[in-house]
Amino acid sequence: MPRFTEDEVIDRIEAMRRRRPRFTDEHITMAHGAGGKASRQLVEGLIVPLLDNPALAPLGDAARVDVAVTGSTARLALTTDAFVVRPLQFPGGSIGELAVNGTVNDLAVSGARPIALTAAFVLEEGLSSTVLEAEVRAMALAAVAAGVSIVAGDTKVVERGKCDGMYIATTGIGEVDDRADLAPTGVRAGDRVIVTGCVGDHGIAILLARGELDLSADVCSDTRSLWPLMDALLGACRGDLHCARDATRGGVATVLNEIALAAQLGVVISEELLPMRPEVRGAGEILGMDPLYVANEGVFIAFVAADAADAALAALHGVPGGEAAAIIGEVADEPAGRVLGRTQFGGHRMIDLLVGDPLPRIC
Amino acid sequence: MPRFTEDEVIDRIEAMRRRRPRFTDEHITMAHGAGGKASRQLVEGLIVPLLDNPALAPLGDAARVDVAVTGSTARLALTTDAFVVRPLQFPGGSIGELAVNGTVNDLAVSGARPIALTAAFVLEEGLSSTVLEAEVRAMALAAVAAGVSIVAGDTKVVERGKCDGMYIATTGIGEVDDRADLAPTGVRAGDRVIVTGCVGDHGIAILLARGELDLSADVCSDTRSLWPLMDALLGACRGDLHCARDATRGGVATVLNEIALAAQLGVVISEELLPMRPEVRGAGEILGMDPLYVANEGVFIAFVAADAADAALAALHGVPGGEAAAIIGEVADEPAGRVLGRTQFGGHRMIDLLVGDPLPRIC
Repeated sequence: MPRFTEDEVIDRIEAMRRRRPRFTDEHITMAHGAGGKASRQLVEGLIVPLLDNPALAPLGDAARVDVAVTGSTARLALTTDAFVVRPLQFPGGSIGELAVNGTVNDLAVSGARPIALTAAFVLEEGLSSTVLEAEVRAMALAAVAAGVSIVAGDTKVVERGKCDGMYIATTGIGEVDDRADLAPTGVRAGDRVIVTGCVGDHGIAILLARGELDLSADVCSDTRSLWPLMDALLGACRGDLHCARDATRGGVATVLNEIALAAQLGVVISEELLPMRPEVRGAGEILGMDPLYVANEGVFIAFVAADAADAALAALHGVPGGEAAAIIGEVADEPAGRVLGRTQFGGHRMIDLLVGDPLPRIC
Repeated sequence: MPRFTEDEVIDRIEAMRRRRPRFTDEHITMAHGAGGKASRQLVEGLIVPLLDNPALAPLGDAARVDVAVTGSTARLALTTDAFVVRPLQFPGGSIGELAVNGTVNDLAVSGARPIALTAAFVLEEGLSSTVLEAEVRAMALAAVAAGVSIVAGDTKVVERGKCDGMYIATTGIGEVDDRADLAPTGVRAGDRVIVTGCVGDHGIAILLARGELDLSADVCSDTRSLWPLMDALLGACRGDLHCARDATRGGVATVLNEIALAAQLGVVISEELLPMRPEVRGAGEILGMDPLYVANEGVFIAFVAADAADAALAALHGVPGGEAAAIIGEVADEPAGRVLGRTQFGGHRMIDLLVGDPLPRIC
């Protein structure tokens, strides 16, 4: 490294140092992940201005998050998800929007009001800066819509061919709502099973967006924050809402199985009651995808005491995204740990956990 | 899907369902990321038993973390990091251990006692289950050593060639210590600059572990939890500890620049005072790596009021990993926003931010 006198040093870099770093590179390079000057330009020149918020601005090693507490305990919820969806953008959403909403929703269905998120990026060398900027912007917009701040982040870069454009891992912290006491073990025989919206949109939208099939249909991902729906449901049901889970990977069938197993109760549903758009039903039939197993990003399943079911439905119907909410079945003592579908002909079929992966990298 | 009577269903799968899922697959497949049966086997059969703790066990969408609070505000710290280190295992550590310690340390140097972590995995199809198990085990051991629980997780699988074995993103939540009031803007002219241990071990260990160089040396990564060192330092210095930052990517030089810029003060160090193992110094010279820019995973830089510097050093020397702690320089009003190295010949050199990436994927 060259040597300078102190004065020379000051003169040479005065102008450069005082100004805010600018990010003008067209593509991501390994240097953007090295923690030095290029990393600073990427973080301070592109990411932070888009995600602008007071907790992120100091760029310390950790963000400070103060949570007001009544009583002596902060009741927090913590959740994390890695997002590897392919393609990065699809009708109705993109990886950035999904990374925010997916994590917000894991908090929401746990009865926790989302407070703050963190985001860790793995970027592929050669990724277009325009694509990255679009995704950071999508995250910023989704965060505003969901009422959360993205308070901490990290960026790593891997060589060409060691990633697929970008992966994003988000983590969310939330405050458990006083009205919420949700757990699979809170589910009771007689509870009604409510699905909050039309199923299958996200999975079918992704499948069509891949363009590998000679089929097109007007289907958009349902990615959205579920907190407004949960907030309304808690307001209407309070302790009568026993459990909720969002129907993402593995779809409605997988969620019902998880709850049945954990509660050691039976879940019996009538498949014809599942709200579903005709385009989604049609595409599913052509593609041989059972909509019960297709991923959603804006739908959750709620287990509600029978007496509160009507109030729950009314509350959901009043919130955007909940218009199609429906009761699809109920909980019974038997068959313990299993899910049965009542057919229109009076028979039953076993609805098991998803086996294999009909649709990889859905989120 | 075949149809069964209810009784047939019960008989067929009774035995299967009651037992805990077992994970016996030799390699990771796409199905392990699909959210269905294979995912359940991976998570409940391999990951959860190794990370065993009460918050993780319920496997809800979010983990419940209760934090006892005195007063009306929970003062939390939140941080996230993606780990893409290559190779996955190296002398002195591995990606799993790094993923725990790296995030614990971002909390620690912010003056926050680490409480809980989350872990999001991106796994490559075909990854050996033995390799994954070793890393989950390494995370479990590192978490126990650091006094944190891993309370939530996620697992995604991408196709062969879309990842490099595995990437792990961890997020940490901590409670800001009452004794800590740390910020770059708290740094004052006259503060002493302390480095808590020998520099360069991690970066040189990784470089040698790649086996691309015809050089071997007995160098191990310094990955460790830094909370015990921070705890001791806070005990000795309290408000006289003004700022701390761990010297990871970009090394000591980058941290000093970040603080100088944020504080708009000058940092002047004497490079010969940097504690460094002879093997590291030698390997660095042969490889042309400036140790000031080499990443560490068990060293932080502390800015301490001059009066408290001796007590700070004594405290650090009493904690494992802090035996080599040393004062390497001090803070001055000028040159504002810059770092200067005093040479043994009385001259100065400018020590700038890292440019380019001499050593990609170091963490």
